[in-house]
Amino acid sequence: MAPHPLDILSAEETNNARDIIVSLHADVVLSFREIYLDEPPKHQLIEFLRAEHSGENVVPPPRRALVQYDAIGADRVPEFHEAIIDLNEKKRVSHTVVDKSQHASLTLSEFDTLVEVCTKSQMFKDVCAEFELPEGFEIIVEPWPYGGLSPDDENRRYFQGLCFARDTRSGNPDANFYAFPLPFIPVMDAHKQEIIRIDRLATGGKDDALDSKTASKKIIDHCSSSEYVPELLKNGTRTTLKPLNVLQPEGPSFSVDGGLVEWQNWRFRVSFNPREGAVIHDIHFGGRSVIYRLSISEMTVPYADPRPPFPRKQAFDFGDGGAGNCANNLSLGCDCLGVIKYFDAVVTGPDGTAKPAPNVVCLHEQDNGIGWKHTNWRTGRAVVTRSRELVVQFIITLANYEYIFAYKFDQAGGITVETRATGIVSVVNIDPGKTSLYGNVVSPGALAQNHQHIFCVRIDPAIDGYKNTVLAEESHRAPVDKKTNPQGNYYEVRQKVVERSQCLDAAPQHNRVIKMINRDKVNPISRKPVGYKFTPAPTQLLLADPESVQSKRALFAQHHVWVTKHLDGELYAGGRYTLQSQNEIGGVADAVKRDEVVEDEDVVVWNVFGLTHNPRVEDWPVMPVEIHQLHIKPTDFFTENPAIDVPSTRNETSVLSNGSSTCCN
Amino acid sequence: MAPHPLDILSAEETNNARDIIVSLHADVVLSFREIYLDEPPKHQLIEFLRAEHSGENVVPPPRRALVQYDAIGADRVPEFHEAIIDLNEKKRVSHTVVDKSQHASLTLSEFDTLVEVCTKSQMFKDVCAEFELPEGFEIIVEPWPYGGLSPDDENRRYFQGLCFARDTRSGNPDANFYAFPLPFIPVMDAHKQEIIRIDRLATGGKDDALDSKTASKKIIDHCSSSEYVPELLKNGTRTTLKPLNVLQPEGPSFSVDGGLVEWQNWRFRVSFNPREGAVIHDIHFGGRSVIYRLSISEMTVPYADPRPPFPRKQAFDFGDGGAGNCANNLSLGCDCLGVIKYFDAVVTGPDGTAKPAPNVVCLHEQDNGIGWKHTNWRTGRAVVTRSRELVVQFIITLANYEYIFAYKFDQAGGITVETRATGIVSVVNIDPGKTSLYGNVVSPGALAQNHQHIFCVRIDPAIDGYKNTVLAEESHRAPVDKKTNPQGNYYEVRQKVVERSQCLDAAPQHNRVIKMINRDKVNPISRKPVGYKFTPAPTQLLLADPESVQSKRALFAQHHVWVTKHLDGELYAGGRYTLQSQNEIGGVADAVKRDEVVEDEDVVVWNVFGLTHNPRVEDWPVMPVEIHQLHIKPTDFFTENPAIDVPSTRNETSVLSNGSSTCCN
Repeated sequence: MAPHPLDILSAEETNNARDIIVSLHADVVLSFREIYLDEPPKHQLIEFLRAEHSGENVVPPPRRALVQYDAIGADRVPEFHEAIIDLNEKKRVSHTVVDKSQHASLTLSEFDTLVEVCTKSQMFKDVCAEFELPEGFEIIVEPWPYGGLSPDDENRRYFQGLCFARDTRSGNPDANFYAFPLPFIPVMDAHKQEIIRIDRLATGGKDDALDSKTASKKIIDHCSSSEYVPELLKNGTRTTLKPLNVLQPEGPSFSVDGGLVEWQNWRFRVSFNPREGAVIHDIHFGGRSVIYRLSISEMTVPYADPRPPFPRKQAFDFGDGGAGNCANNLSLGCDCLGVIKYFDAVVTGPDGTAKPAPNVVCLHEQDNGIGWKHTNWRTGRAVVTRSRELVVQFIITLANYEYIFAYKFDQAGGITVETRATGIVSVVNIDPGKTSLYGNVVSPGALAQNHQHIFCVRIDPAIDGYKNTVLAEESHRAPVDKKTNPQGNYYEVRQKVVERSQCLDAAPQHNRVIKMINRDKVNPISRKPVGYKFTPAPTQLLLADPESVQSKRALFAQHHVWVTKHLDGELYAGGRYTLQSQNEIGGVADAVKRDEVVEDEDVVVWNVFGLTHNPRVEDWPVMPVEIHQLHIKPTDFFTENPAIDVPSTRNETSVLSNGSSTCCN
Repeated sequence: MAPHPLDILSAEETNNARDIIVSLHADVVLSFREIYLDEPPKHQLIEFLRAEHSGENVVPPPRRALVQYDAIGADRVPEFHEAIIDLNEKKRVSHTVVDKSQHASLTLSEFDTLVEVCTKSQMFKDVCAEFELPEGFEIIVEPWPYGGLSPDDENRRYFQGLCFARDTRSGNPDANFYAFPLPFIPVMDAHKQEIIRIDRLATGGKDDALDSKTASKKIIDHCSSSEYVPELLKNGTRTTLKPLNVLQPEGPSFSVDGGLVEWQNWRFRVSFNPREGAVIHDIHFGGRSVIYRLSISEMTVPYADPRPPFPRKQAFDFGDGGAGNCANNLSLGCDCLGVIKYFDAVVTGPDGTAKPAPNVVCLHEQDNGIGWKHTNWRTGRAVVTRSRELVVQFIITLANYEYIFAYKFDQAGGITVETRATGIVSVVNIDPGKTSLYGNVVSPGALAQNHQHIFCVRIDPAIDGYKNTVLAEESHRAPVDKKTNPQGNYYEVRQKVVERSQCLDAAPQHNRVIKMINRDKVNPISRKPVGYKFTPAPTQLLLADPESVQSKRALFAQHHVWVTKHLDGELYAGGRYTLQSQNEIGGVADAVKRDEVVEDEDVVVWNVFGLTHNPRVEDWPVMPVEIHQLHIKPTDFFTENPAIDVPSTRNETSVLSNGSSTCCN
């Protein structure tokens, strides 16, 4: 059977794309970065989806692969190429050599290279030798993207390594080395594959100069172990927690066919790519279109420690490394309860061949408490339903840090995009007994630097069709007026249409709500256009000075909402190439600059939200999840609460506790 | 065994208090309103709690009952009395006759009276007769508090009845009458027990004057039925949802002894009273004090329809009717999954005798997804824990509307106060085919009026002791500065201590966080004072004009945070007597006016948040829950993540789905 146009590339398709590229580059060495589905242009895909939904037979758009690779010629300097292969025609249909001013996303093999190069570097060995580690400690190099180039950097491809010491005495390879930060960062020229410099890190405190560095050779003697793997915990794990099991004796309520998921009136497709991780397509409810494409577009994590080279600590976790590339194999950690469906993906090795990436996305149902309830106090009759959710989840690990992303569908027509930040906060060495303006000491000698996480969710709406309009609705106080507001209780609901591409900010003082409506479809009850809405959370935007590199390369992180006209391939809020970027190029700010009409148009809405994270001691050694939820809800899309027919039958397995901790009746 | 000083009054104690009051009023008729525990003064209770926690034997403070009652003398005008009875000494220790300008909270028996009085009223019958209801419809009177007095109202005790028609033809007493709103409101003088006036309601739309009323006698012919009880749904309930069961084969992880709850390092007491519902006391974690008393203090629901008499639609659901009085018997609706512990309460009948109120609070554990996770990408070792929560929940029904309140305790030292708004939105009749500026037509002929819900949570912190300090912490952009911020990435974390009682607002643009700290206790790791924090949500505050009655009687709803010095009995943000109030008296605004020093003091923090609810069609006939969460989290209170020792063992009952909807393996 032919794959669906949104199915991820199979291993065979991936390998075919690779082979075509190899055949076109006979005289150079190729190093492959990514091969993944080039989604069909929207006009083609829309045609196909229309036919699919109406049960017509139609020829699908051609299967196309995006191939990203380095071609390494005689001069040994890699050139970054992007090609699109038509897999039906078995030929290349587009080919670009990316300008050297921009850098390909990193691959994990480049991280491996950094570690190898450090191990061999005499410069690195010399610096390590300056410090005296306690017996049994070894040095760990934690590869990081280089962050934004500073003006005095030549624009070459760099990687940096944050260094720590690991206590090997337990023999446990998972001893937490982050508790022992070392004050130097090797910098590698990725093309030369050599360490070109080792940056020394300040270790001072509140009253010290920015470049204050320790004089002590015993750099981690004042640090202390901070374990999280259960077998290394001093007192072991607690024994007071009794099992809580989720059982679905009749199986799940969802059905899955390839990437197609159906559940409780919802129908959508899940895809996966190395950059965005899981993406949701062609979302319908009750046969009606809601969203064409829903994705996490980008995130940036700027650190606020002003001491060089820390201004360079700024990750773009989607653009730099690829959320899909960093996705966890979820079956390896017990990440969900109940009946779980996993989705596999295909990733690309350096030689361009397909490798399986199992269990990168999971799907399961969960209970989210009461969904709706009403008691008729006259009769005492209570009708109460539980809210069941369907969760599409993926989890990424970026060195020390983890993000859990979930698309949650509910029975009332709502979609929640949830982010959970967890993992280990990034720490640097601080002298004994000092405190800092730049973060919090979370473990002796370990300063967790203040930072922000700013996310961008991309919503390509399709509210009962592809031509939609965006408006901002606000509620405003109205003065007492004898005629219109005699007793002063009235407030005015104002709507302002977004006529041209633009950015907006959250305005909670006016209860600003962003509505995505279809002005050609009117709700028969309210006589208002059908729509979906969300309330942009007024989370703090990027704090870095507007003239800073951190700021210039993350324009997307400076407004809560961006409204743009759809353009094929324009998926990335911070631009296509974020690694080492000095400016955001081709991101949402550029898209808005086209100043296009977006009324009754194919419009895209981007929502930015974040977390200013000034770490607490409680965030150590692994931080409890910090949760953010974006709720996308119907607004006059339906003619009643779509969950009104959810059964209110009593759950027969719930039992009463007699209050003791050991039995129930 | 002697009751704990925070235990609710037993039936016997309640009856004893009643009997003492009766014995003191031989010559008048008594009508009892409430009898409940008068909590001991804080200085006494602190003494007791200190002794309790250290295992000392100590005489508990005297048990005291607050008795609220009307004394009806020869003139038949009830006087509202409040007395405190010392139950140990069996004597009255305080007695107040409340000034007639203020009104006692309503009792449900007053609601019953309104319905009876309407039934007998000729004036009411005459108005009803003006309209022609379809065959089989009967009139329903829905009692409401009268709202704020307008200047031309004499200050007597009133109730109003919203009127609807119920289709009796199904024979089902739970047919949804709200779908058929009638355009008149009878007003009762509660003391005379007679209908004094019937207000006529406008039924016009956007282009009509405020007093535009229908001329049609067939007032509900354009309305249509909107059922929610499963047996009346046209297509029945869905059959596609498979069971999701929560099983705890070894029982719950909590233990309960009277009002004392212990779970996962937490230890606290649950009490219940007719005004606030469930209250949490003496919250400790790991033997350390966190909060002295945590409660939902008040909420107000002002409606924004300017047409008289709708400006009067403004409920204070805690002060007017009492959240505890309106609490659901939770075992009657299947409100929780898993192993459930219910708490009972005692309420007071009009004759002052105790009546059981079973199952008004429930306690259960639930899973809240991943708690923390880290994968060591070098070894592939993932350690992932689930976040277990303990939930103390109560649910109130106020005529058409429901609120679900939950105090959730987590393993990472956090407490979440959650509100869920559900139930049936308040609707009024609107002429066929019209739309309105004042709300949304959610069902033919039914206009759901715009309104707000503004809540206030009262936190009486006890961070490692009772003398605490409150500060606002903000993160501010810092300009590029050669010496302190050379690359512009630094941001400044500023702290401002709240020195004197005051109000503050949310400031998300500065990431304003409210910290409650103990400056006498320093975290040994960070060297900062131990504390708990919350981020005040910048939800829209009260919109009514500051000169309006709605606004003057809800001063609390006009700022996000209030910081006051503790005063015994000062528990109610909107004042002690809200029913028919014209001004907020004795609420947080008055408390702040005392202008007291609150640094290193016994300080109380009040958090106000809300929801501007411009109804959607999807909110009909019963609205999906709108959820708000206030997260109270430790900040340098502990020396590490308190959940680090939660076991990461795989849940053995989770299974894989094969993707079909009918089986799993």
